[in-house]
Amino acid sequence: MERSGAYDKRIDLNCDLGESFGVYRIGADEQMLGIVTSANIACGYHAGDPATMRKTVRLCLERGVAIGAHPGLPDLSGFGRRTMSVSPQEAYDMTLYQIGALYAFVRAEGGTLDHVKPHGALYHMAEADTALAEAIAAAVYRFDPELMLFGLAGGVLVEAGRRIGLRAVRELFADRRYAADGSLVPRDRPDALIADPKEAAAQVLRLVREGRGETVCVHGDTPRAAEFARAVRDALEADGVTVGGIEPDRSM
Amino acid sequence: MERSGAYDKRIDLNCDLGESFGVYRIGADEQMLGIVTSANIACGYHAGDPATMRKTVRLCLERGVAIGAHPGLPDLSGFGRRTMSVSPQEAYDMTLYQIGALYAFVRAEGGTLDHVKPHGALYHMAEADTALAEAIAAAVYRFDPELMLFGLAGGVLVEAGRRIGLRAVRELFADRRYAADGSLVPRDRPDALIADPKEAAAQVLRLVREGRGETVCVHGDTPRAAEFARAVRDALEADGVTVGGIEPDRSM
Amino acid sequence: MERSGAYDKRIDLNCDLGESFGVYRIGADEQMLGIVTSANIACGYHAGDPATMRKTVRLCLERGVAIGAHPGLPDLSGFGRRTMSVSPQEAYDMTLYQIGALYAFVRAEGGTLDHVKPHGALYHMAEADTALAEAIAAAVYRFDPELMLFGLAGGVLVEAGRRIGLRAVRELFADRRYAADGSLVPRDRPDALIADPKEAAAQVLRLVREGRGETVCVHGDTPRAAEFARAVRDALEADGVTVGGIEPDRSM
Amino acid sequence: MERSGAYDKRIDLNCDLGESFGVYRIGADEQMLGIVTSANIACGYHAGDPATMRKTVRLCLERGVAIGAHPGLPDLSGFGRRTMSVSPQEAYDMTLYQIGALYAFVRAEGGTLDHVKPHGALYHMAEADTALAEAIAAAVYRFDPELMLFGLAGGVLVEAGRRIGLRAVRELFADRRYAADGSLVPRDRPDALIADPKEAAAQVLRLVREGRGETVCVHGDTPRAAEFARAVRDALEADGVTVGGIEPDRSM
Repeated sequence: MERSGAYDKRIDLNCDLGESFGVYRIGADEQMLGIVTSANIACGYHAGDPATMRKTVRLCLERGVAIGAHPGLPDLSGFGRRTMSVSPQEAYDMTLYQIGALYAFVRAEGGTLDHVKPHGALYHMAEADTALAEAIAAAVYRFDPELMLFGLAGGVLVEAGRRIGLRAVRELFADRRYAADGSLVPRDRPDALIADPKEAAAQVLRLVREGRGETVCVHGDTPRAAEFARAVRDALEADGVTVGGIEPDRSM
Repeated sequence: MERSGAYDKRIDLNCDLGESFGVYRIGADEQMLGIVTSANIACGYHAGDPATMRKTVRLCLERGVAIGAHPGLPDLSGFGRRTMSVSPQEAYDMTLYQIGALYAFVRAEGGTLDHVKPHGALYHMAEADTALAEAIAAAVYRFDPELMLFGLAGGVLVEAGRRIGLRAVRELFADRRYAADGSLVPRDRPDALIADPKEAAAQVLRLVREGRGETVCVHGDTPRAAEFARAVRDALEADGVTVGGIEPDRSM
Repeated sequence: MERSGAYDKRIDLNCDLGESFGVYRIGADEQMLGIVTSANIACGYHAGDPATMRKTVRLCLERGVAIGAHPGLPDLSGFGRRTMSVSPQEAYDMTLYQIGALYAFVRAEGGTLDHVKPHGALYHMAEADTALAEAIAAAVYRFDPELMLFGLAGGVLVEAGRRIGLRAVRELFADRRYAADGSLVPRDRPDALIADPKEAAAQVLRLVREGRGETVCVHGDTPRAAEFARAVRDALEADGVTVGGIEPDRSM
Repeated sequence: MERSGAYDKRIDLNCDLGESFGVYRIGADEQMLGIVTSANIACGYHAGDPATMRKTVRLCLERGVAIGAHPGLPDLSGFGRRTMSVSPQEAYDMTLYQIGALYAFVRAEGGTLDHVKPHGALYHMAEADTALAEAIAAAVYRFDPELMLFGLAGGVLVEAGRRIGLRAVRELFADRRYAADGSLVPRDRPDALIADPKEAAAQVLRLVREGRGETVCVHGDTPRAAEFARAVRDALEADGVTVGGIEPDRSM
């Protein structure tokens, strides 16, 4: 998992997609699929439904975007953003269930499931509770040890993934500011967010060159978010960076 | 799929299992796992939840009971028994979703998913609507063409399964009376049900010898149902029948 | 309930509102509240959630729009549009539950609940099954015999409401074409819909003058729908019609 | 709200009831209705459904058991026992929604809604967060300031209820041990639970005489729990205590 020189110039951009539900539409999915190289597809717990999963998987395959499962808490009314006191066993079970559900659509369409990234509160809860992180990593590993696990760069989930033998991919956030030591500036600080896509792209480039992450999360919840993501990608490419999916791991 | 002589003396017994939800317990699962040779495990739509799925899959593997997915309508409060006007596309999507969800637990436990049997209203709706039956069969086939599809003997779902290239297994009901031509006596007829397990076993034996089915459904919702199932199995074995899972299909 | 002369020049316009759910937004509620005189507010089964119900009730009270409960089938993923085989007892129970849930917000805000209008498939199912219609009417009546029940003009629900002693309000649809005998032109006919708001307003005026209904449904699902509704209202007012809520019933 | 002499000899026993869901049965409701004087009826979020609510309300009215709403978190799969990070506004909204839903059945049956008691995690969360407690109390008050609010004796919810002007009823637990100062012995202590109903009754009597509470919670989840509750009631009555509902508050 050591940084190879190739990483200097190659970055994966990921986005949460397929979060519509029934008649409810959310997210600029069409636009984002032209920008990102990896998609985290909702699996029906915090968002998403079988029809949306099928359509989103097909779009990813058509566009050559890598497919990940994006399992969340069973909290549709809260969009999976509300912390819940689930046990590690419950986290394992709900992660495994959702991976399988998405996998079915990927398999039926002749594609490959590439990674798993927990959603919202589940993602954050894993950072605060090693046992939860290990349970999530175990669910991924037991389903398929070749799957990649996306988690907060420098965080607990990535560590748990590595310990069990998964390829753990460190995630950075394009619109969040990082301190010099690579840690996130806390959300309640006035300078927590970056609004200028050029500045965001410069920060991303620095962090990747420092070997602090392999994938960068961009948001697609609003048209403005999509414009920002587009501008970040353009700025990266203007800097000579290849925006591409995670490369096959030559060390494994 | 023609009857071989071996089928005369071999019958599969199947039962719906894993229909508990959260704190709610239902079904004599422990007892039934000692009686049946195939289990249809609920997948979280009409019943079941991730924890129940994991536990039920493990129990099946420990007891050597073949594992099937038992997808149902998204109607937990109605236990999947209420007809809903879902489109073929919706039926395809919900079947595929649920197959994948159960498959995840089977794969994580190192087992094999053997078959799919729709639940309740979805099962009956498929008999009344060829397009729905074809959509369900397509979901099974696209997930894995090696999966078997269980459906009503002589019915529409079995035909749809065969047309698409699945091994379709014809299901009989131990506690329902069949007319001489192999059709079910309608439920509203006073003689629709068979209460005597010996009589049920004799009918099963006759139907199987006539080549009318390969698997027999027994219920486990109540302790009395489990006793009935046990008595049917005992009577079949006393008659020299081997109660065993569906045999590998030598014609394929 | 006989037509009084006053009805010639007075029409209620109603719209389904409050159908957002969690992070999901739907409907041009703000616009529609400036157009209609009665709102049918979703109650959390087919759409809506407690926060949306509270906000929508408040907006109605601020704008002087009459408030109705809009109970639907327990089918969030299908938006309550899929027919389900619910029993009359189930229809009674789910209607009563949802009326109470909405009533709580109306009461907490110091308002009055005026009417009940079933949603989507539940509305249509009541037209096809007298026992269902009677069950829905009974739920309304047992909660409060002063509530009005909105149903299809000339239909089964309105009849059931009258039989039990409710004030039943006959609903017309602004964008549907009616035959000379007051019946709806079936949806599969090419002329089923009216696209021109002036023509729609003229038809509404004719139907109301003929005593065929007291409230007119306009849709607000899309901005274009809101524009249509606005234009219908403007055309009615240009014709000297008062667009106002259902008048207190002087016959009761 | 001061202790009157009458309280020495009068105790309310309450139990959570109506927690079945769909085909799933839970709780010894029939038995418990012969033992308790107040029922907390689930409202469809953590448990319960419209049919169960209707039946349970009817049974309470037949048996003369006082009726309370028992609102919980939207977590059916976790039975409302998992802490969730809901905002005060969300707690207000979900409490109000559920009160109204239960109220509808009480009103339709001609009964009176007497009290509200939050369920499980919501009950405990209110003790740890004054803003949540105030939000729950506000929902109760805004629905009906005459409703009583049941909360942990000596706790935050009871205080919040009193501040807003509700009659707040202090709840004790029959099967938990209390220290001399009236505080609960923590659950992780080996002596946290009382297994002997005579000892439980003696403790209840002491606590009530000390003016520490007005209602006592007994459980009905298992037949054994019902036996325990019966024995506690018998021991109290043998001691000359009247087990009856909360008396009308003469101070208001």
